[in-house]
Amino acid sequence: MSADLTHFDAAGHAHMVDVSSKRETHRRAVASGTISMHPATFDKLAQGTASKGDVLGVARLAGIMSAKQTGNLIPLCHPLPLSHVSVEFALDQAACVVTCTAATETVGRTGVEMEAMTAVSVALLTIYDMLKAVDRGMVINAVKLIEKHGGKSGSWVAD
Amino acid sequence: MSADLTHFDAAGHAHMVDVSSKRETHRRAVASGTISMHPATFDKLAQGTASKGDVLGVARLAGIMSAKQTGNLIPLCHPLPLSHVSVEFALDQAACVVTCTAATETVGRTGVEMEAMTAVSVALLTIYDMLKAVDRGMVINAVKLIEKHGGKSGSWVAD
Amino acid sequence: MSADLTHFDAAGHAHMVDVSSKRETHRRAVASGTISMHPATFDKLAQGTASKGDVLGVARLAGIMSAKQTGNLIPLCHPLPLSHVSVEFALDQAACVVTCTAATETVGRTGVEMEAMTAVSVALLTIYDMLKAVDRGMVINAVKLIEKHGGKSGSWVAD
Amino acid sequence: MSADLTHFDAAGHAHMVDVSSKRETHRRAVASGTISMHPATFDKLAQGTASKGDVLGVARLAGIMSAKQTGNLIPLCHPLPLSHVSVEFALDQAACVVTCTAATETVGRTGVEMEAMTAVSVALLTIYDMLKAVDRGMVINAVKLIEKHGGKSGSWVAD
Amino acid sequence: MSADLTHFDAAGHAHMVDVSSKRETHRRAVASGTISMHPATFDKLAQGTASKGDVLGVARLAGIMSAKQTGNLIPLCHPLPLSHVSVEFALDQAACVVTCTAATETVGRTGVEMEAMTAVSVALLTIYDMLKAVDRGMVINAVKLIEKHGGKSGSWVAD
Amino acid sequence: MSADLTHFDAAGHAHMVDVSSKRETHRRAVASGTISMHPATFDKLAQGTASKGDVLGVARLAGIMSAKQTGNLIPLCHPLPLSHVSVEFALDQAACVVTCTAATETVGRTGVEMEAMTAVSVALLTIYDMLKAVDRGMVINAVKLIEKHGGKSGSWVAD
Repeated sequence: MSADLTHFDAAGHAHMVDVSSKRETHRRAVASGTISMHPATFDKLAQGTASKGDVLGVARLAGIMSAKQTGNLIPLCHPLPLSHVSVEFALDQAACVVTCTAATETVGRTGVEMEAMTAVSVALLTIYDMLKAVDRGMVINAVKLIEKHGGKSGSWVAD
Repeated sequence: MSADLTHFDAAGHAHMVDVSSKRETHRRAVASGTISMHPATFDKLAQGTASKGDVLGVARLAGIMSAKQTGNLIPLCHPLPLSHVSVEFALDQAACVVTCTAATETVGRTGVEMEAMTAVSVALLTIYDMLKAVDRGMVINAVKLIEKHGGKSGSWVAD
Repeated sequence: MSADLTHFDAAGHAHMVDVSSKRETHRRAVASGTISMHPATFDKLAQGTASKGDVLGVARLAGIMSAKQTGNLIPLCHPLPLSHVSVEFALDQAACVVTCTAATETVGRTGVEMEAMTAVSVALLTIYDMLKAVDRGMVINAVKLIEKHGGKSGSWVAD
Repeated sequence: MSADLTHFDAAGHAHMVDVSSKRETHRRAVASGTISMHPATFDKLAQGTASKGDVLGVARLAGIMSAKQTGNLIPLCHPLPLSHVSVEFALDQAACVVTCTAATETVGRTGVEMEAMTAVSVALLTIYDMLKAVDRGMVINAVKLIEKHGGKSGSWVAD
Repeated sequence: MSADLTHFDAAGHAHMVDVSSKRETHRRAVASGTISMHPATFDKLAQGTASKGDVLGVARLAGIMSAKQTGNLIPLCHPLPLSHVSVEFALDQAACVVTCTAATETVGRTGVEMEAMTAVSVALLTIYDMLKAVDRGMVINAVKLIEKHGGKSGSWVAD
Repeated sequence: MSADLTHFDAAGHAHMVDVSSKRETHRRAVASGTISMHPATFDKLAQGTASKGDVLGVARLAGIMSAKQTGNLIPLCHPLPLSHVSVEFALDQAACVVTCTAATETVGRTGVEMEAMTAVSVALLTIYDMLKAVDRGMVINAVKLIEKHGGKSGSWVAD
């Protein structure tokens, strides 16, 4: 495997990449993803958010807390002290789809893309968990990085 | 919100549902999901699996280990002792897509759907992490439950 | 130290008590505690609960999730699969006090008193965290067991 | 809810506050709390500390270790690398009360008040756990911040 | 690889072995290990145990608590609710060696050998940590299983 | 106990040493250890590494991931953001012994010796776990620090 798969050394063995000599810079990442569901399920979710049974409030917290667990979940990910995490949701009534967007920041030697991706994934999984009693057929889609800033490679923005 | 959103009580407050009076039965769940990537990225992954730099081997372990963390990640999920976890991958060269399938089992009072869904999500996030140095545009799609068995509600199979 | 401090063996060494030969029975515990604050802080909390900025919603989840961490926090506590956790709050406007009550259940070989006590403590700590920017002088009081049921020692109810 | 509840954004959604632009300074916090018990229980505790069955030694370690878990327990708390944790106890024989005091320090972008408060709470919960076989009626009181130093808001000392 | 390496399936892929159909039986395991040090270090340890600075008390707790983390540390290990953990030490003054012995029990579908082995390893690592400021040359040796009982394979005792 | 056991204060109470005033420097540590087994077991391991059933690949990941858990396992160890972890194995066919070597790095206020020692221990425990179905008599030996660099005490290399 070529040298650009940095999670492997020259012998092809997995390792946690050495970032000791990298500078501490301000890093930021944004990721998003969706969950689609039956119209009846979507209505329950939308009503709950407006009044009682706040599915999105629970999912938001789950996403934020999971960002702090990223280093424990992703084997070769560096542990790092996050300086900011936010998780937001947008509801598309016509499509019966919820879009989750997470932003993460740190001042450190590695990026926070995985923290944003993990926050989105766990927030969407939590929505699934809370609504699965009425709709087991929900599907999570389009979990992806939107942009990232900071570090030697600088900024990247999805097409 | 109607009573069938079991994660909320009559007042709309989140709680961990009482399963004390449910019988311990054999539970099984299967979930799957995909990650799509550039052809050049797919080739690196496929080559690595065949020889050195085993991305899928790392992702498989990450998925298995994350299934054991499900109760810590999903706020209202019951903690339970899993009796089986497996995570498999299938490569579609033409589409440049990897499909991950996870199966989980327990003998207990609640189902293991969330454990299977979490294993798939974290395995796919790990693939993203290990290949993101060469391809930040990869996308995770179609994370969904395939089937579940056991418990009062019996078997369910996706259409 | 007398033999009735069960967390120590005959030599006075800490150990996790052997419960292998105990029967699995339905266990239940209820604990409570309070946090007192300035009237202005209490008003912010009460307003937030009614509309935006749901301090108690966050604290409830924190309490529920912490119950699942009890075996990792309390050194000699047995790990066990909880079958139910709920966390509720009552607001006393006149006294500017929030009372938190947590109930925990399992079907197992040991009681769930510590899980209920931990859920109350972490829920109250979370309220402190979320309001401390406006009131560092809040005080947590009266964290105690209210009742417990099941197991060889049967039921106990606080005076 | 007014803007000074920093754990919520303008829309009232919980988030982990952005501290990226704060300076790293030396932070220190001290918290305390008490547990009161029956005279017979207090005597067991006091004797154990002097010879065998060291309840306070176990509780001290539990408190120290829990300070390191604060970011995982308190949903919107920033994870941070602690540079110092100490947990001490004082025994008031006349009142049958144990007072726990915890001090925490870091060099970072946020304060360590929650780490000190958590260490006190878990140390007192551990005392409860270890003595509950002889006294279920023990009560935890007066868990509060004593002082904090460092950061933009500077020093604060309880009245 | 032959079928008797049960942690791999027929394709050579790691999985968590399916124990769903195994009966719940009483399981017990005992493991041990040693740490050797300079005579001056050994004297400090021995004095501390007798009076102040209880190295072995801290190491005992670390061992007990780590047994509860075994399923999170060892990738293919089943998580299980332990019903008993004890960790003991014996001091050999002549050889300047401390021997640690850990016993673990559960009533479950898999054995507790790894829990006992982990408790021994972490207890010895903790001794190393606490004494390393005076002796970095300490060595951990002879970490091994002594005996295990219960389950389909029954009892096994080391030669 | 003399003042040089830094994990205890003047009263002999365990604490997490105050490193607030230490400078952040580049720290590095290397540790190693061995596991010995029956010739038939060694052959299975060696074959698996060459083709299917990659015991060492699983053990490597377990070691890397455990380094990130060191602060949670070792009671008085400072939590810190690791900047590099690698785990390697060497096979001695004649002796039927596998040697594991782990290297850890950070830029911080304390050393990373315990992270390297923990990575070695958990990697070897994982080998034990994966091969124990065919050989319960394997023994872990010679877990020790090889060298450490950085910090006020500078470099240390084992004899």
